[in-house]
Amino acid sequence: MSAENVDKLPVHYEQLEDLQEDLEQVELELTRIRDEKTRDLLAEREKIVEQIPNFWPLVFEHAPPEIDEYIQPTDATIIVTALKKLSVARFELPNGHPRSISIKFEFGDNEYFEDTTLEKKFWWRTAKDGWAGLVSEPVPIKWKPGKDLTDGLLDLAKQIFDDEKAGNMGKDTPAKKALVAKLENTSLDNVSFFNFFGFRGRYISEEESRVATKAEEERRQARKAGKQVDEDEDEEEDDDDDFEFEVFPNADEVAVTIVEDLYPDAIQYFLDGENLAAMSDADFEDEEEEDGMKMD
Amino acid sequence: MSAENVDKLPVHYEQLEDLQEDLEQVELELTRIRDEKTRDLLAEREKIVEQIPNFWPLVFEHAPPEIDEYIQPTDATIIVTALKKLSVARFELPNGHPRSISIKFEFGDNEYFEDTTLEKKFWWRTAKDGWAGLVSEPVPIKWKPGKDLTDGLLDLAKQIFDDEKAGNMGKDTPAKKALVAKLENTSLDNVSFFNFFGFRGRYISEEESRVATKAEEERRQARKAGKQVDEDEDEEEDDDDDFEFEVFPNADEVAVTIVEDLYPDAIQYFLDGENLAAMSDADFEDEEEEDGMKMD
Repeated sequence: MSAENVDKLPVHYEQLEDLQEDLEQVELELTRIRDEKTRDLLAEREKIVEQIPNFWPLVFEHAPPEIDEYIQPTDATIIVTALKKLSVARFELPNGHPRSISIKFEFGDNEYFEDTTLEKKFWWRTAKDGWAGLVSEPVPIKWKPGKDLTDGLLDLAKQIFDDEKAGNMGKDTPAKKALVAKLENTSLDNVSFFNFFGFRGRYISEEESRVATKAEEERRQARKAGKQVDEDEDEEEDDDDDFEFEVFPNADEVAVTIVEDLYPDAIQYFLDGENLAAMSDADFEDEEEEDGMKMD
Repeated sequence: MSAENVDKLPVHYEQLEDLQEDLEQVELELTRIRDEKTRDLLAEREKIVEQIPNFWPLVFEHAPPEIDEYIQPTDATIIVTALKKLSVARFELPNGHPRSISIKFEFGDNEYFEDTTLEKKFWWRTAKDGWAGLVSEPVPIKWKPGKDLTDGLLDLAKQIFDDEKAGNMGKDTPAKKALVAKLENTSLDNVSFFNFFGFRGRYISEEESRVATKAEEERRQARKAGKQVDEDEDEEEDDDDDFEFEVFPNADEVAVTIVEDLYPDAIQYFLDGENLAAMSDADFEDEEEEDGMKMD
């Protein structure tokens, strides 16, 4: 929000922002309630679907476009032949942030990688400049020789992250140079879904997030109490460069779609898949006994 | 679900359907809680936005694509110049179905129609063949002379509905012939958003819905109690013809997006709009004092 714009709407703007925050607090509370109320049902579902070997593959085959658009043909082959189980968790509940999420994929033997479990965690963090969103850490995959579907992108993302953690934040490391060079010749529209595990988002420590959340909450309470509050001085930074080394920039959105749509509605996606299969069988078999009900 | 497919999954299929229904019951309960918990906040919001004349126009200008794709340039002009207020309600709560929704648009003087209020209600209904969804009734608009943005489609949809209500269900009335002829020369991709008010969906009476809901609930309870339950004999009908006279076939989905996304997040859409406007002003003014922060 630029300064001149705040001038145009002196009172309303903050009132509206606080109200929107109150509405979002209701959603967070509902997320907590949903998590509690669906836990037993989802555990029951897990037991049933363990007996249906193609359950999760079929769910992914009928995933909504927001997920499906990132699944390349080879990714789909792995999912169909080797995905055994999907589980998600709001792992910071009951005491932490309801928006922190984890997604665990369990795989059987396959010709591409050794891992039987790939888990990706996303933490909900607030930056001191006011930005809030999901951040993560690259998760490496043990590719079988010559089978790296990300063509080295995932390993480089992991290396860059490790370099920065070791104190090379902002430095122009060999891994960064290599990734930039690789990305120049790669369209992120067609890369493997497994780059999903490379996402990191902005770097915001737990400490920064805790302090920023507390400060924002205090300003909000002061405004509610009718006090004059100095606005936070930290303008939102131009964070273009935060995402410069991202190999799957929309992974946070995809993760939210998996957690809030694909996973809770998995039965529906599975049944849609079964129905479609049944219908095309029926169409094929009954082609010559068509009952003439169709309208033109 | 075809018979052979049920054979393939004898137990799991019904267990899964019941579990999915249990999960949906949790969502309905959460919808009730949300309605209650947000009521005061939304009333407070209404008071604030009454003092911001361009609030709702700006919200619609930044509506998500699921809504925006249906708003033609002339529709947008009316919204920008004349939309005063939007309100939504889950009008069957607290005792009826949480999924029944109404959307009310309030307009100031404009050159296209006389109405100051256009309200569209959608009832959640269950058919005896098992289908469940939103149904509605065409809402007429008093167009000023020569200003019918729907080019007669809305009036015909209304006439067909009235004819059927008067006992001509399924008959080939003049209004139906006229609508079919008109639709042959019209792409529904480019028609006015105001055709939204013509949507009806399947015809399912309150009585049919009540009986079907009760029967389904009884079968479900019996299955839960471990009893052998005869499946409902009524197969889902081929309902192609139910939508033959629809002038805005996706109105139910658009309505849900308005109620579950645009309306609750209106402040966010408004602030996004304000920010965008501020940023382009700033870009324009600062063009020559660019600070060189941008990455190429």
